[in-house]
Amino acid sequence: MDDKDLLDRLRVSGDPDLSSHDPSETFGWERDEAEAMFADELAELIELQEKLFAAKSASLLVVLQAMDAAGKDSTIRAVMSGLNPAGVDVQPFGVPTEEESGHDYLWRVHAHAPEDGYITVFNRSHYEDVLVVRVKSFAPEKVWKRRYEHIRNFEQMLVDEGTHVVKIFLNVSKDKQKERFEERLERPDKRWKFRAGDLDDRALWDEYMDAYTEAMQKTSTDDAPWYVVPADRKWARNVCIARILRHHLERIDPKYPEPDAEIDFDDITVT
Amino acid sequence: MDDKDLLDRLRVSGDPDLSSHDPSETFGWERDEAEAMFADELAELIELQEKLFAAKSASLLVVLQAMDAAGKDSTIRAVMSGLNPAGVDVQPFGVPTEEESGHDYLWRVHAHAPEDGYITVFNRSHYEDVLVVRVKSFAPEKVWKRRYEHIRNFEQMLVDEGTHVVKIFLNVSKDKQKERFEERLERPDKRWKFRAGDLDDRALWDEYMDAYTEAMQKTSTDDAPWYVVPADRKWARNVCIARILRHHLERIDPKYPEPDAEIDFDDITVT
Repeated sequence: MDDKDLLDRLRVSGDPDLSSHDPSETFGWERDEAEAMFADELAELIELQEKLFAAKSASLLVVLQAMDAAGKDSTIRAVMSGLNPAGVDVQPFGVPTEEESGHDYLWRVHAHAPEDGYITVFNRSHYEDVLVVRVKSFAPEKVWKRRYEHIRNFEQMLVDEGTHVVKIFLNVSKDKQKERFEERLERPDKRWKFRAGDLDDRALWDEYMDAYTEAMQKTSTDDAPWYVVPADRKWARNVCIARILRHHLERIDPKYPEPDAEIDFDDITVT
Repeated sequence: MDDKDLLDRLRVSGDPDLSSHDPSETFGWERDEAEAMFADELAELIELQEKLFAAKSASLLVVLQAMDAAGKDSTIRAVMSGLNPAGVDVQPFGVPTEEESGHDYLWRVHAHAPEDGYITVFNRSHYEDVLVVRVKSFAPEKVWKRRYEHIRNFEQMLVDEGTHVVKIFLNVSKDKQKERFEERLERPDKRWKFRAGDLDDRALWDEYMDAYTEAMQKTSTDDAPWYVVPADRKWARNVCIARILRHHLERIDPKYPEPDAEIDFDDITVT
């Protein structure tokens, strides 16, 4: 499957209809094949990031959202750890602090928007303010409903001013989440990842899927698209994410700056 | 002139038509009378701010914009210094730093948006990105033109999330600016306020007035209005600004929090 077909299948336009996205989709790849593809993709990402960082003329914001155990942390480790960490900023957003709650919900995320040259990954984001806030009724409907428009406007402003915005929903199945939760409960070295609240969120699975569906439908735009990435198989997930990032870095098309024209490079001797 | 008439005269809706706003307007007040009125207004502002700070349920953002020597600093000193500084944040915006320039132009201002309970005054603001940036061609027209919409959306988001937004243009006359510049040049203790670039901006007076006019026309909304305040006479200016702030604090209508219902206040002895 070529890049364009794959991206077209993953990209959300209009109603994302999660029932049509199989979390265990593999796009016909075998595991070995996918791992080799991923290695090639990573090499290209490394080259593109180097240019982005040198050019300092644009930036890339990657928003990662998912249910628990869908693999947000593992995605970041797999895809980002090959890149130059000097140009990557991974920013997690947890329960808001008192100071954060005293401001509008975009305040804390805007503060971490990437600087020119950088790739910033949001591990959770402002989308929690139309997801958990909606599902758990932390704010009235009137409040979270108008946030879709705020978010569209906010991201459009970032795009207009030079930040490319990509949003990825890691689409894990409810069965796979169960399997991963059970692994976390059984293995002492994984128990630290399990929170009591994880089961509360799992019990609200359908409500979360409705909230994700509406959030993606209302905020996926040409300039700041959502992608639904199948997350049950990590090796397929990694290929999808690397391709999405490569596509957006290629759209930025960063170039190394021109060398200083005043310097005669052939005539320099370093002593 | 009652509050409503005064505010209606100052508030911008549609084309502000600066030629209809006399910078030396006094609204029929004598100086002594205006100073007494201002003292009364300040007492009310102090009371309202105390409640705002205790309630911590909303905040007030005051954007101050003007040509040089229009009296931004003197306004802040006169109007804000009576308030409890624990709840006031005065934030000046100068030439962007390298880090600020590497982000969208709203990044640095959003970072200083007020927390619930606070009054924040922006001494210059994101409006410079459609004023000086336009007049001096620091960005192409295509870039600054779309910022009006960003700014409307950004301020509307702040309002939706609990920040009241008031924008004030200190309308000084070109003659009064000349007089104040000359005073700065003549008096050794005032020379520090004079920058060489001040005369460059003065030479572009008409271009700045066009830029202010369009900025106010495009971004004055019911929820985040612009006011044009006559600034040639400080005593008239102070009354206008205090009334504007009082009006918006009264719209917030902050209340002291309810006392703890668990406590029987009549039955407490402090030993």
